[in-house]
Amino acid sequence: MATTVEAAAMRRAISLAALGLGRTSPNPAVGCVVLDATGRIAGEGHHRRAGGPHAEIHALAAAGERARGGTALVTLEPCNHTGRTGPCAQALIDAGIARVVYAVPDPTPTATGGARTLAAAGMDVEGGLLAAEAAAGNEAWLTAVRLRRPYVLWKYAATLDGRSAAADGTSRWITSPAARADVHRLRAEADAVVVGAGTARSDDPHLAVRGFEGPAPQDPHEATGGISQPLRVVLDTEGSAVRPGARILDDAAPTLLAVAQDADTAALADTPADVLRLPRAADGRGLDIPALLTALYGRGVRSVLLEGGPTLAGAFLAAGAVDKVVGYLAPVLLGAGPAALADANIATLADALRLDVTGVDRLGPDLRITAVPVATHTTSGEN
Amino acid sequence: MATTVEAAAMRRAISLAALGLGRTSPNPAVGCVVLDATGRIAGEGHHRRAGGPHAEIHALAAAGERARGGTALVTLEPCNHTGRTGPCAQALIDAGIARVVYAVPDPTPTATGGARTLAAAGMDVEGGLLAAEAAAGNEAWLTAVRLRRPYVLWKYAATLDGRSAAADGTSRWITSPAARADVHRLRAEADAVVVGAGTARSDDPHLAVRGFEGPAPQDPHEATGGISQPLRVVLDTEGSAVRPGARILDDAAPTLLAVAQDADTAALADTPADVLRLPRAADGRGLDIPALLTALYGRGVRSVLLEGGPTLAGAFLAAGAVDKVVGYLAPVLLGAGPAALADANIATLADALRLDVTGVDRLGPDLRITAVPVATHTTSGEN
Repeated sequence: MATTVEAAAMRRAISLAALGLGRTSPNPAVGCVVLDATGRIAGEGHHRRAGGPHAEIHALAAAGERARGGTALVTLEPCNHTGRTGPCAQALIDAGIARVVYAVPDPTPTATGGARTLAAAGMDVEGGLLAAEAAAGNEAWLTAVRLRRPYVLWKYAATLDGRSAAADGTSRWITSPAARADVHRLRAEADAVVVGAGTARSDDPHLAVRGFEGPAPQDPHEATGGISQPLRVVLDTEGSAVRPGARILDDAAPTLLAVAQDADTAALADTPADVLRLPRAADGRGLDIPALLTALYGRGVRSVLLEGGPTLAGAFLAAGAVDKVVGYLAPVLLGAGPAALADANIATLADALRLDVTGVDRLGPDLRITAVPVATHTTSGEN
Repeated sequence: MATTVEAAAMRRAISLAALGLGRTSPNPAVGCVVLDATGRIAGEGHHRRAGGPHAEIHALAAAGERARGGTALVTLEPCNHTGRTGPCAQALIDAGIARVVYAVPDPTPTATGGARTLAAAGMDVEGGLLAAEAAAGNEAWLTAVRLRRPYVLWKYAATLDGRSAAADGTSRWITSPAARADVHRLRAEADAVVVGAGTARSDDPHLAVRGFEGPAPQDPHEATGGISQPLRVVLDTEGSAVRPGARILDDAAPTLLAVAQDADTAALADTPADVLRLPRAADGRGLDIPALLTALYGRGVRSVLLEGGPTLAGAFLAAGAVDKVVGYLAPVLLGAGPAALADANIATLADALRLDVTGVDRLGPDLRITAVPVATHTTSGEN
């Protein structure tokens, strides 16, 4: 059984892990706290970016000799494989750690076995401490690894009567500066931001993170502060929505244009963006969403922020490819104008997509409603 | 200055007043607590129904001789006029009350002067104690008297994406039993429930209060418990939406059919409902909303629960005749189906009706969002 001191250290490790959100893909965000033999904190660390040292390595380095005979608290089962960095299990053994407590077992086929390796080396190993909290902090990555596609958060902004714009198309700004700033936080935490051709045409969006500083660097000698820009993705089926000079083509963040396999892409010959060819959707409307997600997963994307338009949101929902919904509701009534969601292939109330509300927050005058599809919610509860 | 004991007694008087909501129109809901000369509660009362004794009379009767030399706490300035019951100011004087503390001045032209009469009789009189709380409890009546039209609460139920039904028209049930039960509470507190011809045709609504018991009787000898049924009102412009046998025509509550002055009402010759003839709206769509509200006010209606359809809600909003909005939002997505609000005569975002959210509550799986139009909110803050 873990002690209260260990539980407190695990909580700290969970908050450290959160500092890496949006930077570590395709790796998870992980935090680690090393206690010395007397139970005092000797070192802390978190995984800061893919390719960099894992959380355990940072924490062991900070602890130095004080790690010997100590306990390591890790939010995820320590890895056992040699990837771009050495296996953490071996590093913990080499540092003389006596006990390892982790929260969530590693679901990656190539990474599991860390706990077994540690136990075989004679170490005291315990799993499951604060597993639910740690899993919640790594929800996107765990879901992505389980489903072999990126975790998708659909964000929308609407009036109380569900409109995303007025009858004449005006939509700036329905929500408040506080709500819009929160969207930049979501972008910073996501690996990719996705919009459709309609949004690209009508809004000429930029989609990079602005005005969100991100967590401060933990170590002044390493520049890990600041934000991590997501991959900007446009589902531009016909290859005609993103014109030269579009704001999304600047160098603020990488950009990917997803086009139909048979689209005429002559106009994209000189585009600075990557171009990804995908099959069209079976119903002929736009691109095949599962194929898009598989391709993004293959590129290391583990979390997607879906920002674009009612039609694209409908296509994602119809494909069962929305894991969380964040709605920014402005206390505004319009009575006319486009709806926030369209074409989700739901004809009758019995087929409605039912959600569980997991959070309601005030952001300035607006409300932020967070909800998860009932089925997804139940399934992910098994983790 | 009022004492802490007096403030506590006023709080009690405010909660007593609430017991009368929905029963006292055209009178306000008023509560009264009488303290004896030593500051102990000697009697309590509230106005239970129009035509019955006022709150002060009930409280004085309960206090008996203990009222002599005591203090009366009243949520509204005691009346000075002789209506269906005698003036309360005189009753307080006759009972030997030494001090009267009231919360809100009476805005009714025929009723003011109670405080002056009391002071002239040598009584110690103080106004304004917990005025904001007391005014909030009597918000509908105070607004109605100020505007000379009933206070209007627009209630709607919708999905997170703003739909009031699915594409095929199915709408039972979008919201949960808890949310639907709350609507019956709103009906019980309202003097009238209003729907349009569209709702009457498509839903055949009953509109009476069901499953809501109301407050228990304060006095077992008087049957004041149970609910008070609102007047059921259908805006049936052409006189053709409410057919014989419609549920709204039963004897559970009174019913009023509002029809256009020039409508052919031959089909209504045998209707058990009252028929009210009104001018058509200037834009030709439906009836003139201000004329409807004036007519209802003349019939003693001080609060209206607007339940009906997106078009009628749009007409009320366009007429500036909505004082509060209560939205029941179900965590459901449809992507198709009618919107909860239509035709509010708003073409561009700059003309949107902006609200202040005054409450967010969970009702089972649903959210109840309460909001007031920004302008109305500011104005009523002057009370």
